[in-house]
Order: sequence, then C-alpha cells, then structure tokens
Amino acid sequence: MAEAAKVLEWVNESEGLGLVLQHALVGGAAIDAHGSALPAETFAICEKADAILLGAVGGPKWDKLPPADRPEKGGLLEIRKRLDLFGNLRPAILYPQLAGASSLKPELVSGLDILIVRELTGGIYFGQPRGIRELENGEREGYNTYVYNESQIRRIGKVAFELAQKRGGRLCSVDKANVLEVTMLWREVMDEMAKDYPDVELSHMYVDNAAMQLIRAPKQFDVVVTGNMFGDILSDAAAMLTGSIGMLPSASLDVNGRGMYEPCHGSAPDIAGQNKANPLATILSVAMMLRYSLNEPAAAQRIEDAVSTVLDQGFRTADIFSEGNNLVGTVEMGDAVIAAL
Amino acid sequence: MAEAAKVLEWVNESEGLGLVLQHALVGGAAIDAHGSALPAETFAICEKADAILLGAVGGPKWDKLPPADRPEKGGLLEIRKRLDLFGNLRPAILYPQLAGASSLKPELVSGLDILIVRELTGGIYFGQPRGIRELENGEREGYNTYVYNESQIRRIGKVAFELAQKRGGRLCSVDKANVLEVTMLWREVMDEMAKDYPDVELSHMYVDNAAMQLIRAPKQFDVVVTGNMFGDILSDAAAMLTGSIGMLPSASLDVNGRGMYEPCHGSAPDIAGQNKANPLATILSVAMMLRYSLNEPAAAQRIEDAVSTVLDQGFRTADIFSEGNNLVGTVEMGDAVIAAL
Ligand SMILES: CC(C)[C@H](C(=O)O)[C@@H](O)C(=O)O
Ligand SMILES: CC(C)[C@H](C(=O)O)[C@@H](O)C(=O)O
Repeated sequence: MAEAAKVLEWVNESEGLGLVLQHALVGGAAIDAHGSALPAETFAICEKADAILLGAVGGPKWDKLPPADRPEKGGLLEIRKRLDLFGNLRPAILYPQLAGASSLKPELVSGLDILIVRELTGGIYFGQPRGIRELENGEREGYNTYVYNESQIRRIGKVAFELAQKRGGRLCSVDKANVLEVTMLWREVMDEMAKDYPDVELSHMYVDNAAMQLIRAPKQFDVVVTGNMFGDILSDAAAMLTGSIGMLPSASLDVNGRGMYEPCHGSAPDIAGQNKANPLATILSVAMMLRYSLNEPAAAQRIEDAVSTVLDQGFRTADIFSEGNNLVGTVEMGDAVIAAL
Repeated sequence: MAEAAKVLEWVNESEGLGLVLQHALVGGAAIDAHGSALPAETFAICEKADAILLGAVGGPKWDKLPPADRPEKGGLLEIRKRLDLFGNLRPAILYPQLAGASSLKPELVSGLDILIVRELTGGIYFGQPRGIRELENGEREGYNTYVYNESQIRRIGKVAFELAQKRGGRLCSVDKANVLEVTMLWREVMDEMAKDYPDVELSHMYVDNAAMQLIRAPKQFDVVVTGNMFGDILSDAAAMLTGSIGMLPSASLDVNGRGMYEPCHGSAPDIAGQNKANPLATILSVAMMLRYSLNEPAAAQRIEDAVSTVLDQGFRTADIFSEGNNLVGTVEMGDAVIAAL
C-alpha cells in the first residue's frame, strides 16, 4: 500500500489532478489500534470519498476473534456491503513479460485476457439465517443461506452484459443449476436479459465444469459472470493461471460507478513487512481507480505503461522472479515504477 | 458402460468370481423408458446389490423437466442420498503415459497423486429450506441452505484421516471459515479429530486459495477433505490437472464400505453414442469396486495392469490422443483392455 500511495501521490502532483488522499485503518491494523476492524472514522472517510484504495486484510493474529469482528467480515465485507459495492471486476491477464511464470503450457495462456464479474454483496456471503446452533440431541450444526433475488441478479447481469459488449461480445454465466434452486433462478434471469443484448453471445456453464475449463482451455472465455462464492473461487483460479496473481488489480463498484480498488491477492501474512511483497497489483489498482471512478484515463494509462516498462527492464519481486532477471523488494519495485513514470 | 460391463464379465468368468451383474436404468434413459429418473425397480436392485456401477447421467434433453425429476437430482443425487453414500473418493492421478496431456508444465504434475475426499450426502446439495419463492414486491428469490452438523463432519473426517494414514500422512481440510459459519464448525471439528490421529498432519486452506494452489503447485497435496459443493468444484479441477479426466474413477461409500462406483467425468451428451467416449474411467471404476466393495484385490489389479498395458501399447481415445499414438473408439478401447487381460 505504501508503494501504491507513493505512485498515486507522484501522479497526482505531476499531472495536477488535485486529488486528496486520506489514510484510514481497516482490518487487523484497525483492530490493533482502535479495537474494531472498521472504525466509524474509517467508514466516514470511505463514505465521503470518490474512490477507495484498499490493502488486503486478514491474518492468523486475528483468527481467534469472533467471526463478525475479524478483519475479513468486520472490515472488508462490511465496507463492501454498506457501500453496496456489488459489481466486482477481476481481470486475469497474462503479461507477455511473465509468460513463463504460468503453471500452464505457454500456448494455452499466451494472450490470456479474461474478465471475471463477481456479484459481491449478496449470495451465501450475506444470506440470512446463518450461524451455529445446538440441536436437540446436544450436537451443533452450522448453517448458511445462499440467496439471490431477481433484482440482484439483474443488476450484476447488466454490468456483465455491458462489459461483454465493450470486449469480445461473449459472456459465460456460471452456476450450479442442476442442483441449486438459487442458481436455477440465476440462469433464468440471465437468459431473459440476453434478449436485450443481441450483440452478446450468452452461454451457461456449471461451476465444476468451469473450474475444469479454466485449466483445460482458459482462452475460450471472454467475460464470466457468477455469484459471490463461485466468483471467489473461480477468480482466484483464473488469476493463478497467469502465474502472476501479484500483478492483478480488482474493482468493486456500486450502481453509480463509485468504487473500491484492491489487489486480487490476499494479505500474505507470512511475508508482510519483509519488503518482499509485489506492490504491482495495488499500483495497478490505482490505475484502475483513476480510470473507472476518477475519470483520469490518461493518468491510468501512464501508470500501466510504467508497470510494463519496469517488467521490460527486468525488475521482479520474488513471486514473479525467474532466472536472468533482477530480484527486487517491495520498495525498490515502487521506486522503479516512479522512475519509469 | 457397455465396455466396462464387458470387462467385468470377462474378469468375472476368467477368475471365477461368481458375481451376478444386473442391469437397471437410471437418469435420462430411465425417464425415457419409465417416466422416472430412478424407477422403483432400479432402486430395489441397487439396495440389494453388494456394489453399484453407475454410468454418468444428465443431458440437455431432460433439462426442461422440473429440477426434482431431472437425471441429476432425481436419479444420481437420490441414490447417493437414499443409500447414504456420504464418502466420495476422487483420485487425481497422472498416468505417466499421458504426462503430455496435462495443461500444466510436466515438472508440476509428474507423479501427481492426490485423493480428494468429498462429503456427498449433505451440505448445500441437500440442505433445507430450498426453493424459489415470490417476495412481497412480486419478484422471485431463489434460496438454498448450506448445513452440516458435527456427526456429518466427523464421519467424513474419519474416512479422510484414515485414508491419510494409509497414504502420505497429510490431510488438507478445505473450507471458507473466514466467511461461512458452517465451515467454521467444520474446521473446529477437524481440529478436534486431529488429536486422535497424531500420525496425520492436518492443515486448513480456504477454498479460493485451494483452487489457486491446485494450479500453482498441485503436488503439495496428499489427501484433501471438503464438503459437497467445494468438493464438486475442486475434484473436477484436480482431475483436469492430470489432462485425463476420461481416465479417473470414483467411489462413493456408506459407513459399511458398500459403494457406488462411477467415472469422475460427466455424461458428455455431445459425443454420446458416437463411439468416441473414453471407457477407461468406467473400467477403472470396476477395478475400484472390486477392491473396495467386493474384496477382490487381485482382480482389481489385473484390470489396472491391463489399462496400463493398453496405454503402453499406444491406444488412445480422442480425449487423450496425441501425435504418434493409435486413435481408437470406445469399443476398440474396451476390446484392447480385454486383449491385454
Ligand atoms: C478475504 C475474503 C473474505 C475475501 C472474499 O472471500 O471475498 C477474499 O478472498 C476476496 O476474494 O476478496
Ligand atoms: C451431475 C451432478 C449433480 C454431480 C454433482 O454435482 O455431484 C456431478 O457434477 C458430480 O460431481 O458427480
């Protein structure tokens, strides 16, 4: 986050964007400092902001807290829900400079460019009732509810269909309609909506098959739309296909396009604070933010070009390192981007 | 299925096993012939059998039926549930002869041998309440319930811990305990059980991370245990890693080890009846059945060796074909296995 803020401030000044960057704590850091994963002050700042840049949250240190108080539920999911950031865009793009970093054979992933559109404020993540209860025989039972209504499906469908129009014109909706009623409704609504988007070719795929197809032939996909839980799983798989999950940004948008931007990767507590993490996903999240929420496409492009330049120059953090390149730490990578800018 | 039955009959006669093979319809074929995906007669035969060999069900022809009547829910899930076949074993093994068929780079998958243990009769597949209802504002809402009690978790845990003991001694339990209460209970129970298996090293992984790790470094896994829905997704992904999902059998066992055996792959309606499908997964399911339910390990081994022989001889159905081998159809592959036997 420090490197991304550095890049943002640099672009802000050199391009005279007039952005005001405010800092606020969330997740584990906020719990440690204020006893809450989402302090009122943090939320107030987020609510007034034109866009939010978020660092990944979570770690073993806070895993023993009651679920609702942990960084994930108490911080991240709470902001998503309270600001109604239902439209989660997760690109999986293979950077040509990193082609060798993929687990997959080069011919299967070269040129890969998938966009996963994940519903982010509904589904089983937020469904009620939920909890752990005691049964009559004394044993416990855990339960969650996977639920979507038609308007929820429709509004994420709209995001996905419109993005498909701007991209390759193909939309694959992923569900488990052979088993789960909630996804039967999902499929039905997507089919209805398809009539309004004659220029988009809609297909359906079961989630188990989608997981297989992502591995077998990922380039068959253009835009994928799915619910919160399946989107969580498939977007991580898709990102990993590129071999550079440390490179991938994401956006979470409300109906007005106001958004929160964060790396696709997690908080990697095992390497936190060791100057090892790859800052490029968060730096590219800044670019995405400038483009989607702050209407500064030129500044966004400059950052993206700078990232491409540092890759060309051979700068690599450990996660994307390969023989013959220049292994650098988090700070040095941030500096390299500024230098390229 | 015809080829697998052929192999079973051949082994039965030549080894004098004294098995009686009864045929019964299930899924789409049963709907067409008897108007039900699981006719009473079929279920009666299954109930009395020592083991069941099942052909994959489902296809577009029956997708417009009410969900409960379709091949998947009305046939497959119904047998699993009524016979309480809760323990689903799905191996993902790379056949050395097919190493080139994997999407992954050879060094990442050579020697791959993972066993996914999936809970098969609980979780969101069977949770109540479920359905599609009309809300007060007139729109519809779909809902399902993801639920597990302690005994359900414990009995699948037992299967997984015991298998880990017999294999590499490592068990990875996959959940989404940072979001879903039902999987918080799952994790807690697995942790408790671990105390009774000091020779097994238990780890936990979030499902999104598991999907990534399967792609990044699949050989880190030995036995994986997870719920019905996550198991559906991850076992398909794991199978696809081997590049030969047409080769992988599966077992679904009750508490007494009585079981149903089926290929990991689906019914592939696009090639059904065209003499193109790979029969080896079903043939290997016969071997698994002989070993786990019918106590005929020698016969099982003979079949497995025969499959290895036909691969050595270069016989390949289209799904596993590569240059320089001998492309054959379903029937020819079955014949080749018999010849090798
Ligand atoms: C940290 C976790 C709650 C979160 C999620 O499951 O949504 C993360 O995995 C993500 O994908 O952003
Ligand atoms: C056909 C379908 C209902 C089934 C499942 O989801 O369990 C299949 O995908 C499987 O994995 O056996």
